[in-house]
Amino acid sequence: MNTDWIAVDWGTSHLRAWAMQGSAVVAEAQSQDGMSKTAGGDFQAALMALIEPWLPAAPVDLIACGMVGARQGWVEAPYNAVPSTPIPSAPIRVPGTDRRIRAFVVPGLKQTIPADVMRGEETQIAGFLAPRPHWDGVICLPGTHTKWAQISAGEVISFRTFMTGELFELLRGQSVLRHSVDDGWDEDSFSEAVADALSKPEQLAARLFGLRAADLLHGQSKAVARARLSGLLIGAELAASRPYWLGQQLAIIGSEGLSGVYATALKQQGGMVETVDATTATLTGLLQARTLTRQTA
Amino acid sequence: MNTDWIAVDWGTSHLRAWAMQGSAVVAEAQSQDGMSKTAGGDFQAALMALIEPWLPAAPVDLIACGMVGARQGWVEAPYNAVPSTPIPSAPIRVPGTDRRIRAFVVPGLKQTIPADVMRGEETQIAGFLAPRPHWDGVICLPGTHTKWAQISAGEVISFRTFMTGELFELLRGQSVLRHSVDDGWDEDSFSEAVADALSKPEQLAARLFGLRAADLLHGQSKAVARARLSGLLIGAELAASRPYWLGQQLAIIGSEGLSGVYATALKQQGGMVETVDATTATLTGLLQARTLTRQTA
Repeated sequence: MNTDWIAVDWGTSHLRAWAMQGSAVVAEAQSQDGMSKTAGGDFQAALMALIEPWLPAAPVDLIACGMVGARQGWVEAPYNAVPSTPIPSAPIRVPGTDRRIRAFVVPGLKQTIPADVMRGEETQIAGFLAPRPHWDGVICLPGTHTKWAQISAGEVISFRTFMTGELFELLRGQSVLRHSVDDGWDEDSFSEAVADALSKPEQLAARLFGLRAADLLHGQSKAVARARLSGLLIGAELAASRPYWLGQQLAIIGSEGLSGVYATALKQQGGMVETVDATTATLTGLLQARTLTRQTA
Repeated sequence: MNTDWIAVDWGTSHLRAWAMQGSAVVAEAQSQDGMSKTAGGDFQAALMALIEPWLPAAPVDLIACGMVGARQGWVEAPYNAVPSTPIPSAPIRVPGTDRRIRAFVVPGLKQTIPADVMRGEETQIAGFLAPRPHWDGVICLPGTHTKWAQISAGEVISFRTFMTGELFELLRGQSVLRHSVDDGWDEDSFSEAVADALSKPEQLAARLFGLRAADLLHGQSKAVARARLSGLLIGAELAASRPYWLGQQLAIIGSEGLSGVYATALKQQGGMVETVDATTATLTGLLQARTLTRQTA
């Protein structure tokens, strides 16, 4: 195997690495050593456990994005301020690494008013825009902390983060609703809940308890409850982000399942939506970031 | 000590008991043996650990309210449907108890559309109304699952439950916001957040992440963040419950701290609010419930 460079996506809950030849993936590996496990610990050891088999004799570039660039991360990669291109400055070199790697971390983006931050999504946005240099519109990046980014002339003009994914996980796993929700799904219930929350987003906390009550009183199915829970949270998010997406060209960058759920909700509201695979966008963005390191090396 | 009867408030997270002589408290005790600990276990043992020292030679009545009457509780006390008086039917006798007690559990209330349930609050409402038989208006009972109940001619006409308290605890303790919030408080930040959420309740999930970003970018104080978190959630609840409270006579039944927070928010919106101690309301309601058991005994 001939590893040209190594791409790394290192978030709060996961660590993923790819051995690359140019833009082609030659090997991949992942572990649960996200930042929530490794913070304050041995970052290099967690990484080497995945990539050691790929390392050639000569040093290779390793380009990482995500929470690994936070203050408590492997190296702090200070935020760049919007408006700006997604990756306006060169990735930050990690000092004192194993000699077989030259490691860099991509800086995140910040917005002063309203206060907001991203780490990792800037790389996906860069990867999305690389083959679409004249694309203007709004990108939705669903996840634990879903981002909406307004793009114009190759720059991120502004963005907003919603805690929708984290709320869903907390409510499903830790709240009283855990007794009333399972892993099932019901498409109609999802769509109804999205429409309901879009028209009355302020009712969220009451609608949530209603899922519990509907179980106790009417034996509502746990699959219906899960779809409604998701629909209520995403519907409220769409109500709040409407100024972003209404009448705009829209792209969703995410995992297949979650992108599909957001696409369903947006199409239901008349949105025109393109969905893009998150991994493809990440790898294309990291390849771009690598070019920046070589320009400044 | 001459124990006439025993009052018990048995919720999800706590167990409280009082030795009573008529309406006077002669002793009290509490433990963490709430329903989340005792469900499926030995209810009577958890109770006896608190009340055994109070028991006279002759059997005494014990009247309990709260989640203890759920299907998985000590005895199931089926819900009564609204509209109805708060306690329209006699408490349910617990079979097979220690001979020194005659134990009863107060039934909760249910509402079919929209689906909703309460257990314990009906007793507090009964206790509040006992000395105010002609009181019409809206009662707010803040807690893990805050209830709003519309009262007319001595009946609970309708009610709504909001998961506000549970959301606050999950977000404060388990979400990414746990890094940005402490136990402090800032009154002005609370009031601003209430007003903000009342005018834009749909922005909740974005405003929540904003608390994290304001910490990372501007070093926002953790006391300010806690007050804002509370204000955003309560403001969204007030936006949703506005049809309930606007222009109505209002009472809040709760613990001193939480009642004060809700009263501040409602007064800020021009509401006229009376606050009532939750324990007093519970004991008065349980005394009323005891009368019902004796009528049907």
